[in-house]
Amino acid sequence: MALISIIKDFHPHNYAKLLDRAADLAPTLRHSIVAPVGGFVLKERYSPEREDIVLHKAHHLAMGKGQNLCLDFGTHIVGYLTLDLTYSGSHPDAPAYLKLKFAETIGELSENSEDYRGWVSSSWIQEEYIHVDVLPAQITLPRRYAFRYLKITMMDTSPKYKLIVRHAECRTESSADWSKVPSASSGDPQLDRIREVSLRTLANCMQEVFEDGPKRDRRLWMGDLRLQALTNYVSFRNNDLVRRCLYLFAGSRFPDGRVSACLFTRPSAEADDTWLSDYSLLFTIALDDYLRETDDEETLRDLYDVAMQQIEIALSHFGPDHLPDETFCDSAFIDWTEGLDKHACSLAVLICAIRSARRIARRKNDWSQGGWLMEQEELLKKAALAAYWDPDRKCFVSGKHAGEGSLERAEDGSLERAEDGSLRGGQISVASQVWMTLADVLAPEEARTLMEHALELGSAHSMMTPYMHHYYVMALLRTGLREQALQHIRDYWGSMIDAGADTFWEAWDPADPSASPYGGRVINSYCHAWSCTPAYILEEMGLLKHENADPVQ
Amino acid sequence: MALISIIKDFHPHNYAKLLDRAADLAPTLRHSIVAPVGGFVLKERYSPEREDIVLHKAHHLAMGKGQNLCLDFGTHIVGYLTLDLTYSGSHPDAPAYLKLKFAETIGELSENSEDYRGWVSSSWIQEEYIHVDVLPAQITLPRRYAFRYLKITMMDTSPKYKLIVRHAECRTESSADWSKVPSASSGDPQLDRIREVSLRTLANCMQEVFEDGPKRDRRLWMGDLRLQALTNYVSFRNNDLVRRCLYLFAGSRFPDGRVSACLFTRPSAEADDTWLSDYSLLFTIALDDYLRETDDEETLRDLYDVAMQQIEIALSHFGPDHLPDETFCDSAFIDWTEGLDKHACSLAVLICAIRSARRIARRKNDWSQGGWLMEQEELLKKAALAAYWDPDRKCFVSGKHAGEGSLERAEDGSLERAEDGSLRGGQISVASQVWMTLADVLAPEEARTLMEHALELGSAHSMMTPYMHHYYVMALLRTGLREQALQHIRDYWGSMIDAGADTFWEAWDPADPSASPYGGRVINSYCHAWSCTPAYILEEMGLLKHENADPVQ
Repeated sequence: MALISIIKDFHPHNYAKLLDRAADLAPTLRHSIVAPVGGFVLKERYSPEREDIVLHKAHHLAMGKGQNLCLDFGTHIVGYLTLDLTYSGSHPDAPAYLKLKFAETIGELSENSEDYRGWVSSSWIQEEYIHVDVLPAQITLPRRYAFRYLKITMMDTSPKYKLIVRHAECRTESSADWSKVPSASSGDPQLDRIREVSLRTLANCMQEVFEDGPKRDRRLWMGDLRLQALTNYVSFRNNDLVRRCLYLFAGSRFPDGRVSACLFTRPSAEADDTWLSDYSLLFTIALDDYLRETDDEETLRDLYDVAMQQIEIALSHFGPDHLPDETFCDSAFIDWTEGLDKHACSLAVLICAIRSARRIARRKNDWSQGGWLMEQEELLKKAALAAYWDPDRKCFVSGKHAGEGSLERAEDGSLERAEDGSLRGGQISVASQVWMTLADVLAPEEARTLMEHALELGSAHSMMTPYMHHYYVMALLRTGLREQALQHIRDYWGSMIDAGADTFWEAWDPADPSASPYGGRVINSYCHAWSCTPAYILEEMGLLKHENADPVQ
Repeated sequence: MALISIIKDFHPHNYAKLLDRAADLAPTLRHSIVAPVGGFVLKERYSPEREDIVLHKAHHLAMGKGQNLCLDFGTHIVGYLTLDLTYSGSHPDAPAYLKLKFAETIGELSENSEDYRGWVSSSWIQEEYIHVDVLPAQITLPRRYAFRYLKITMMDTSPKYKLIVRHAECRTESSADWSKVPSASSGDPQLDRIREVSLRTLANCMQEVFEDGPKRDRRLWMGDLRLQALTNYVSFRNNDLVRRCLYLFAGSRFPDGRVSACLFTRPSAEADDTWLSDYSLLFTIALDDYLRETDDEETLRDLYDVAMQQIEIALSHFGPDHLPDETFCDSAFIDWTEGLDKHACSLAVLICAIRSARRIARRKNDWSQGGWLMEQEELLKKAALAAYWDPDRKCFVSGKHAGEGSLERAEDGSLERAEDGSLRGGQISVASQVWMTLADVLAPEEARTLMEHALELGSAHSMMTPYMHHYYVMALLRTGLREQALQHIRDYWGSMIDAGADTFWEAWDPADPSASPYGGRVINSYCHAWSCTPAYILEEMGLLKHENADPVQ
């Protein structure tokens, strides 16, 4: 995720002991060598039209000024490129000047990055201009790239020689160990393929930390981490990597103790000056997940206070009416949906986090804290129903409770309606229905009915990211709507595969394939952690039949 | 020099013993650290308008997207750049994307290299695009650059941070040892400055070999080597480097024994597939120069045959009339002057080379070879006079002696004239007068009169390069025109200094400062070996008073 928050003179508070523990947990990186499986030439520099070449011939193609060669590495990979370059013709009398474009999807090859005008830095676009002074040469680029396709364009040679890319290979890098992945099948080719793509997505994001995307951001985001961890528990099982990331988040925080939404690890661990109210609460939820998976007493002891502190800080943004203030709502991420009202969601996320906190407190035998949390949970659920539930329309309506644009209420507190019966102010989104369902605010039957129609109800404020789609599917499952959940996985993640995904994408709207939350598709990340959860969900649904033989590769 | 010759399936013949000897003579490279002495910002990206900044402030300038910072390293240097980068604002959440432009002259800073359409490869333009993933960072670029100015443009940061160039420095590289340079003064500030700039030009071209230019080509060219060697003998006195270069030229040649015009040294020594008839002969002349300087018997023994072979190969291009064939003339370089007719010059260069060969033969006590050479010299001088001297106009007229466009002659062999008295065909250039004078074809008094008016006589086919201007000055001195020679040094090389030269340029026409033989100024080399000779000429003229103290720096 990219997001711009700037706090002047921000200095995170670092906790050396926690950061040292995180450093001890640094994973071993694994490597393999991947060579291209195919080659082609784009007929024009930015044309999608291409001419396939047998790979053997691609490695003999003599490239003059302006020519291009595209190599296909077969699937999405993350690592370091080595090119073995030579020439035909006379001895090179001038450097070879190359442009290298690394593309996660084939569509990127024919996009001119100079046309990009989005708000996320163009410095993320994976392009390099390099001079090669001496040929033949073997060059290894110092930066890591996430890609399937490599487009090599000869910016200039000299009339005396042409360049030949004799060999190319990528030394991949990941901390995921495929031998740990249980061999399993659903018996359904589409679901198996969805699982495979999920796992590759996760593996390619598993580096020294759980990165959100190996192309862009390349760092820890709390929202991504929680979903990666869940999927990791049923696949690569690198629980130490989850633990390391939790310690990192706890080890560098806002001066007031808030867990940051994201964290830099280089040159050293440092919390970003970005607070997302829901992401801070996901720390508590992710710790609960981790402890349920591992029963790790040491981590419980070390991170308990941080998890509880996130709840307390969140509650400090709630008034006597048990509703969130504007700072809290404005600071929630929830989804990239434009104009999304986050009042209902942010309250619901807190309820979910308190449920997790209760479980953690119970694990610690901290009964007084547990009791207090339960009280808070009940108060918030009641407030949620009173404030956002529309008993007539049988759905949640999100909005502000004071000031301009707020939900209007009659004196008895009920929602005010315009003459045509519509609510004055407020917004019906998919997200609100989903999070309120996950927060168990409604009775099970009511929740089920709500979720059956959540997509239609919130169609004006739909979902934008696989992150939100994950929670939608989880809400369906929470209300027993298994068929609907499975169909949604097929429709949503399956359609990404139909559109050519080797790994799942950061943003995807099947109805608008060119959508980008960042102002340009070229900056989108096409291997993004928060999209990896189908492997987890299919496992949770009990749809996978496990075998003992050969792990999935 | 850049020049494009392509011979299909060319394979030079390498002489291992000679190349091994050249390898033994590899020089020690010397280094120093040079930091900027000033800074400024260009008001627009390609505007020459600038705003000076105190260097201290330049090293605190926070650069956002699109901003530039120019650093001035005080004079022309050659070496490796290190940048110490940091940031202001929030922790960088995206790579810093920088463009670095290295410029030998200030004018290059405001040129957009994308506008360059010349015939020499744009890959020589000293520009790099780099991504810096982690800040703060100290980065050292792997390539060597020749520059005085460095323009750093922020292609992109992110709204969260700005880049600061905290420190920049260049680790210079050269095999020139300034402590060997005699401290000397002419007592005339302009001439002293000309000498200083000459020496810096030479020093910056002295690397593992005598390079023609440290920015472009960066390799051995025979024409440059000869002039560098002469200047070296009166300054850095690295005679082993001259010897090494002569062994390299002898060690990798055309299969028929011809010395190539130029030679690559990386990845290993290899003659270029470029034959320039005058450059091959300069091997013999340069060997003669070297032996006169060093009396080196071993080199005489090792390279004698190669030097004589160049004369024999040249003579094989001469018919019974002792005039050169078209292949020989077309293959002469002489100068970049457009449309220059090279018949007279290429014959004259051969006469000069034979004079050198005679001296080498005498040194070897090879009297039979010496006698034969003397005969050839006399025959060629007579032929030169008969073919190209116009006794009426008292100058040399160059042209072809058969076929279309040739000099037309009456039956008695005299030059044919049109009714207005002009010669039919043929061309009067400065170069022809110069080389015929250097070849001693005329009696001294006649030559003196010719050289007094050579510039006017040849004004329609004037000189383009400092290389040709050098030989012009040498021809003036050969006919005793010391004042005219000195004035030409002041006018020509002096005007380069007035135009801002820290080192002398590859091409310079005071009447047309934007001239380039390569189709664009941005590709010109502004530190070019063949321009370094004023230091030699001033010494030869006896204008320098030597001191014992402090060598010139």
